[in-house]
Amino acid sequence: MRTPSKTRVAFQGEPGAFSHAAARKLLGSEVKVLPCPRFDEVFDALQGNRVTHAVVPIENTLHGSVHENYDHLLEYDLPIVGETSIRISHQLIAMPGTRFRDVRRVLSHPVALNQCIRFFKEHPDIEKVPHYDTAGSVKTLAEQHPSHSAAIASAAAAEIYGGVILKRGIEDDRQNFTRFFLLDRKPLKRPSTSGGWKTSVVFSMPNHPGSLFRAMACFALRDLNLTKIESRPLRGKPWEYLFYVDLLGHADDTSVANALGNLKEFSSMVRILGSYQPME
Amino acid sequence: MRTPSKTRVAFQGEPGAFSHAAARKLLGSEVKVLPCPRFDEVFDALQGNRVTHAVVPIENTLHGSVHENYDHLLEYDLPIVGETSIRISHQLIAMPGTRFRDVRRVLSHPVALNQCIRFFKEHPDIEKVPHYDTAGSVKTLAEQHPSHSAAIASAAAAEIYGGVILKRGIEDDRQNFTRFFLLDRKPLKRPSTSGGWKTSVVFSMPNHPGSLFRAMACFALRDLNLTKIESRPLRGKPWEYLFYVDLLGHADDTSVANALGNLKEFSSMVRILGSYQPME
Repeated sequence: MRTPSKTRVAFQGEPGAFSHAAARKLLGSEVKVLPCPRFDEVFDALQGNRVTHAVVPIENTLHGSVHENYDHLLEYDLPIVGETSIRISHQLIAMPGTRFRDVRRVLSHPVALNQCIRFFKEHPDIEKVPHYDTAGSVKTLAEQHPSHSAAIASAAAAEIYGGVILKRGIEDDRQNFTRFFLLDRKPLKRPSTSGGWKTSVVFSMPNHPGSLFRAMACFALRDLNLTKIESRPLRGKPWEYLFYVDLLGHADDTSVANALGNLKEFSSMVRILGSYQPME
Repeated sequence: MRTPSKTRVAFQGEPGAFSHAAARKLLGSEVKVLPCPRFDEVFDALQGNRVTHAVVPIENTLHGSVHENYDHLLEYDLPIVGETSIRISHQLIAMPGTRFRDVRRVLSHPVALNQCIRFFKEHPDIEKVPHYDTAGSVKTLAEQHPSHSAAIASAAAAEIYGGVILKRGIEDDRQNFTRFFLLDRKPLKRPSTSGGWKTSVVFSMPNHPGSLFRAMACFALRDLNLTKIESRPLRGKPWEYLFYVDLLGHADDTSVANALGNLKEFSSMVRILGSYQPME
């Protein structure tokens, strides 16, 4: 996608974070960025007009749905307008001049360090050093030039901070993907010609036998295909559940609109989070 | 629960981890433990008879389901025999003699540091120091006695390593709960008298319109109440989905057994993970 020069995207983490890689994939590699320490600050930045878009992780193949970002999607009125997935691939990165055989310490976020167990087993003389952020560990190398040190982060982090990749793809699990949403302040209209839409919806239901079945009937009656369903107990409301549903179609399609209208008869809350065309 | 002296439980993390707190709640505070660096090692320890039980986190109210542990539950044949939830409450812990006004550095896992943002905003002179583990940060204080240092971890970690709690409950979000499963090598039989059972099931379905609806019908026809449903795309099998379902009842109840038999007509795989009585 070509990025107009006014496009600026907020994400959580340092420049070079996997969210930054997702933002580049969705908006082009030259997109201007606003890195934020926390997810609520990402939503605030978009709502407060300090950026044109935001990119947030919504689920990971190992760690599940990011409920915190579903909470923010419900709290703020910022529609989803795009979606993509990024494979979490970890690179061993050092500053130019550091050779692999000189490396004695590797900085990264503990979650990333734990996703590269095989590498550390093969190199028992290399020490794991926990750091606050994956991309931030490359930033620290670039700023402080500690001796005998490398970092584990994305390829984008190497590029941004002028690091070199000493070892590629040192993650244990190559099936580790994170799915990201692209957010805007206005929802996308459905052009009359194009297909391939997906719609994300959150609704609540009372917790009694058959209530979920009734909700599913609203979609099944219209032959709508669900690509995700997830229940989440509402803390403090022990008898109600939140449901996250993704379905194929645009919210303005007659069958989708009818299904959601039908769902409102049984549900105390139905919220369309957005309709979007997934980017592979 | 009184713990027979041969009971020994494996969990991921250092002694004093939240998994350890869950194990104490489920098996008694004197339970013997085998702390493991990784989740697969926890399952290996139980399968290999090195422990009698294992305790693993399965979902968190902020971070969602722990798919990695669902994968291990499918891979190993180790049934769920108990369930409990633990509130993730963070304590500021120091070694005896360190006063709060002397603290300049706080060690913890970055996820825990990020869950105490308000505390660090109120004390801008205190530095966050990322560490590999929450309980491990208290262990490091006890072993190395760094000056002007404290840690963020569970109350159990303070007790185990002889720390004192300087500030209680410094987490930003008091609604952060983790749900844990207790695993054994043999499933629990249903005693004829008692109620309050829950059963966890995983099944797979082809991804076409109405297939989930058909699965839900199997439960709705028997008035069974689902307390969790979650879909998960199977990577590498783009047309199939895994579903996680929890329902009220024991797998040996006639209605549950009939529903699961019915489900097998539509599903390429149905696995009962276990029946258990949740502990509040």
